[in-house]
Amino acid sequence: MVVSDVDNSPLTWRSNVMGTMPSIVFDLDSTLLDNSSYQDTLAEICRQVSELHPGVEPRQLQQANLTIWTSNKNRYMTELWDGTKDTFSLGEEVWELTLAQCGIQSRSIAREAARIHDATEAGHIRLYADARSAVQTLQQAGIRMALVTNGPSQLQRRKIEILGIAPWFEAVLVSAEVGHSKPEPEIYMLALESLNADPKDAWFVGDNLYTDIAGANNVGMPSVWVNRTGEPLPPDAPVPTHEVRTLAPLPGLMGLEPSA
Amino acid sequence: MVVSDVDNSPLTWRSNVMGTMPSIVFDLDSTLLDNSSYQDTLAEICRQVSELHPGVEPRQLQQANLTIWTSNKNRYMTELWDGTKDTFSLGEEVWELTLAQCGIQSRSIAREAARIHDATEAGHIRLYADARSAVQTLQQAGIRMALVTNGPSQLQRRKIEILGIAPWFEAVLVSAEVGHSKPEPEIYMLALESLNADPKDAWFVGDNLYTDIAGANNVGMPSVWVNRTGEPLPPDAPVPTHEVRTLAPLPGLMGLEPSA
Repeated sequence: MVVSDVDNSPLTWRSNVMGTMPSIVFDLDSTLLDNSSYQDTLAEICRQVSELHPGVEPRQLQQANLTIWTSNKNRYMTELWDGTKDTFSLGEEVWELTLAQCGIQSRSIAREAARIHDATEAGHIRLYADARSAVQTLQQAGIRMALVTNGPSQLQRRKIEILGIAPWFEAVLVSAEVGHSKPEPEIYMLALESLNADPKDAWFVGDNLYTDIAGANNVGMPSVWVNRTGEPLPPDAPVPTHEVRTLAPLPGLMGLEPSA
Repeated sequence: MVVSDVDNSPLTWRSNVMGTMPSIVFDLDSTLLDNSSYQDTLAEICRQVSELHPGVEPRQLQQANLTIWTSNKNRYMTELWDGTKDTFSLGEEVWELTLAQCGIQSRSIAREAARIHDATEAGHIRLYADARSAVQTLQQAGIRMALVTNGPSQLQRRKIEILGIAPWFEAVLVSAEVGHSKPEPEIYMLALESLNADPKDAWFVGDNLYTDIAGANNVGMPSVWVNRTGEPLPPDAPVPTHEVRTLAPLPGLMGLEPSA
């Protein structure tokens, strides 16, 4: 069964034949949101920051930035998670340490670097092309959708705001706000409530086998593994109900068909 | 600290300055072994199989093969795991069902397709270039290494045999043989025994945050996340001690230096 989502012909759900109309819960990062070029974004940020100070190399900044992050990630994530710090003041702190490691002691350059970081990153936050078209096809067919994402509130809300996708969903559930993270069943149950759906009629679509797919399997939702690199399923990983390389086959997989 | 592993200058461990000489435990799939082109390999297999029967399209075969795998993966993996089936007879079964879904009922074509699959896949099993050179640099410096891989015995042993890498390691531990899988501590403890090392002196290097890194963190081994696509660390994932995009920085990260 192949259903094109490119020619914009409307798809419909044959409710008389197929039973209850399904709904979908999406993961955000690396499922709808394209995170694959983050290192390129960071390289671009470092190129701009290097122009603020003579003699500092973009590669040196990038190396230092990575080291600072790796050494402090646990603390930074906790601070973002509980709201002790916002992304911008954290960015300033990271850039102050990054620049110091490159021999530059300057609060004003750190502040400017954080501003460049923020703006450049925002400009690179984007959906996969197949995500936008698949979701729109599903929405036109009347499929109800929810979004479930693990992460600190401000970090995740900022991405959702930049993408402008909140109106697509009945509910947007961020783990730090909900108090539960995938694969815990509670966050799936909240999504199901928002869709007024039984687990067996609500598909979960995500890229992470150990959070997205494990949790969906546990509560009895059909799971779709978005495996964009085409890697074989690790032998002892949770087994998804379906596997796709992009979101384009999703409407067809769910049984949507061109309207007669 | 940047140490080149390209110019073949020998690196040494400065034991007087740095304390106990460290050892390393490697994961196999997607860490040393390049699984990224599996879908291309499958496309190549389907192109060859399509030549066995007029009228069947490679894309049709590939779609059917994926469907058969997805529908039966749980059972297939169990059969491989407990040795009920070997990879070749399983391949025959999968190809018989794949061909049947394309309207071809033929045991002899299925057998030939399984043979093509086996041979083509074997020809595509390869290490990342950075894996070979980093491991050789580490070995020349006298670092002792072990391999820990999750999967069915025959499947994992076949890959290791084709790659010819077993002699690099003090021990090769396959989860189906050991009776424990990552992230369970037992399989890490066996690797540490083979290296005669304390957890704090044995680094674990792997690509999977939820198996490799989680398990290493649990037993107190320094962990290195091989993040080849440069994706940001998911906010609630286990936090690795270090992060690298390839294995090239590993010798420098461990404190190996050019010999004086």
